[in-house]
Amino acid sequence: MRKLKPEKTSPEDASQELGEHKIIQLIRARLDAMPDAPVPFGDDVSAVNLGGGQVAVLKTDMLIGKTDVPRGMSLWQAARKAVVMNISDFAAKGAKPVAALVSLGLPRGFMRRDVEEIARGLNSGAREHGTYIIGGDTSEASDLVISISLFGTAQKKALMLRSGAKPGDIVAVTGFFGKTAAGLRLLLDGYAASRELREVLLRAVCMPTARLKEGLALGGSGAVSASIDSSDGLAWSLHELSRMSGVGFLVNSLPIAHEVKCFAEFNGLDAMELALYGGEEYELVVTVKPKRWVEAETAVEAAGGCLLPVGKATRDLQVLLDMGGEKRMVEARGWEHFKSRV
Amino acid sequence: MRKLKPEKTSPEDASQELGEHKIIQLIRARLDAMPDAPVPFGDDVSAVNLGGGQVAVLKTDMLIGKTDVPRGMSLWQAARKAVVMNISDFAAKGAKPVAALVSLGLPRGFMRRDVEEIARGLNSGAREHGTYIIGGDTSEASDLVISISLFGTAQKKALMLRSGAKPGDIVAVTGFFGKTAAGLRLLLDGYAASRELREVLLRAVCMPTARLKEGLALGGSGAVSASIDSSDGLAWSLHELSRMSGVGFLVNSLPIAHEVKCFAEFNGLDAMELALYGGEEYELVVTVKPKRWVEAETAVEAAGGCLLPVGKATRDLQVLLDMGGEKRMVEARGWEHFKSRV
Repeated sequence: MRKLKPEKTSPEDASQELGEHKIIQLIRARLDAMPDAPVPFGDDVSAVNLGGGQVAVLKTDMLIGKTDVPRGMSLWQAARKAVVMNISDFAAKGAKPVAALVSLGLPRGFMRRDVEEIARGLNSGAREHGTYIIGGDTSEASDLVISISLFGTAQKKALMLRSGAKPGDIVAVTGFFGKTAAGLRLLLDGYAASRELREVLLRAVCMPTARLKEGLALGGSGAVSASIDSSDGLAWSLHELSRMSGVGFLVNSLPIAHEVKCFAEFNGLDAMELALYGGEEYELVVTVKPKRWVEAETAVEAAGGCLLPVGKATRDLQVLLDMGGEKRMVEARGWEHFKSRV
Repeated sequence: MRKLKPEKTSPEDASQELGEHKIIQLIRARLDAMPDAPVPFGDDVSAVNLGGGQVAVLKTDMLIGKTDVPRGMSLWQAARKAVVMNISDFAAKGAKPVAALVSLGLPRGFMRRDVEEIARGLNSGAREHGTYIIGGDTSEASDLVISISLFGTAQKKALMLRSGAKPGDIVAVTGFFGKTAAGLRLLLDGYAASRELREVLLRAVCMPTARLKEGLALGGSGAVSASIDSSDGLAWSLHELSRMSGVGFLVNSLPIAHEVKCFAEFNGLDAMELALYGGEEYELVVTVKPKRWVEAETAVEAAGGCLLPVGKATRDLQVLLDMGGEKRMVEARGWEHFKSRV
């Protein structure tokens, strides 16, 4: 889920005026709603009732060469990432993916070895997360298009939706932020870093991982009131949870990755900007019922992950950052396309 | 499922050398197979066991602006067709679609009204076939991309696969062929037709329908041994059934649409070529156990359709056309991209 960036000046240009959120609203308003849909339109995944409290969980998202594959990312990595970004949405809902399909658009001039590399990347992305690519289709396209559809099943009541956060809930994340944003600035904008730092930051861009174990553990704990992944950036995710749950957030501990602080200092950049408004990183952003914090934390740690409390849900609908007493607004902006910066 | 057409001369160019079938083979060879997959890789749909003999049925295919939307087709029609072409694959398996997701790639310069038109087309394609669009995602793309994922459930034993035809089975289709191929020649190649004929042929291109009622009736009859849709052309479909079932076919009655005969005669074209090697038309091509022909025919007629016998499955692996005693090979070639002809 990404924002389209402006180029033309026509006030009616969808990419100019709207951004993805508005485009999805426009579309949704013209679709007949399925009766008894177990997950509201616009959450990270969709679902269909299977009976007996069980639901089929469905997700589709596509990777586009021009906008989603920066220089320096191989086709193997791009294909793997196309799978990972869909799995991350399952992780955020606490749903286990079972099988994936791929709809592949190949530009002319692609070689046999390119196709093989894509296939191996798809397989790695799936197998790392215990799922399989079981079918798909190919077409000719102007640009590389890797559209993944993911399927799984879950108990309806176990799904962690974007709605459900209550004032007083603890907001927490599964890792530190900003490495992908920093890595993209390295790749695209010519910023510098030591060799070790460069390796860590580029790995964040090219080899993202989905927090599936953490998401399944959190779903199983029953301690989470709302959840989303951070693929559009931490700030955007907090605003989405705010909008869907009808709460605000006061963040008092911003989880900025150590490497991002080093990178920002060396290059005269704002580490907080990189951590809040990056994106294409796949941490989970969840709210936890305060009395059940220990259960949530224990479950994630038992799965080999970590759960970092970063603030609290509030009655006030704003998303605020507490900077040692001074409160600053967190803006509702997210990830920017590579294209707008290359 | 379409063949990529050659452009460059490199012997390694995937689109030059391979065509879609080979590309899918290349990919498949690099994927770990899901254990106990209820439908083989490469059939019209994929499936996952749900237990109790039930399977989740999954399909994804994308429509690409440049290659799948000829001049004269509106965005509403293109979006509707993107849904219909996926539903046709469900129809061919006798599986009822329940819900669809859309992954939408929008080029810059698309207007709000374009997005609205696409949304209405998606909804029409879904609602005409009793299903719903329940979610999706949008991205920025170089060209219009409408990737649909379709979900439904079915009894595993009721699914009609491409494999299963036996020598002696009757091969039959759900309608007459060639209108889409003729319509595309009207739209793209400047051929002529009377106003009434033009209307019928262009409707075939722009407003295709999936034979869902027929497919569900055939699936319910239990009389079908193998099935495929004709989206890559009648000849291609026969060759696929031949390859997957290990039989050949002798076609003795080619179901050419009356309008196609008129169009071909007027323009000095070969009606048989249009009927065999067209594509983008969504009839079903099935094989029926001879003793159960009446059941199959009755079921389709009760659903408001028709089932036309066109020939027989044979032991010999060739696909042959009987032209009043003289036998001619039906070639394994299918639908050609608009792009290669505009």
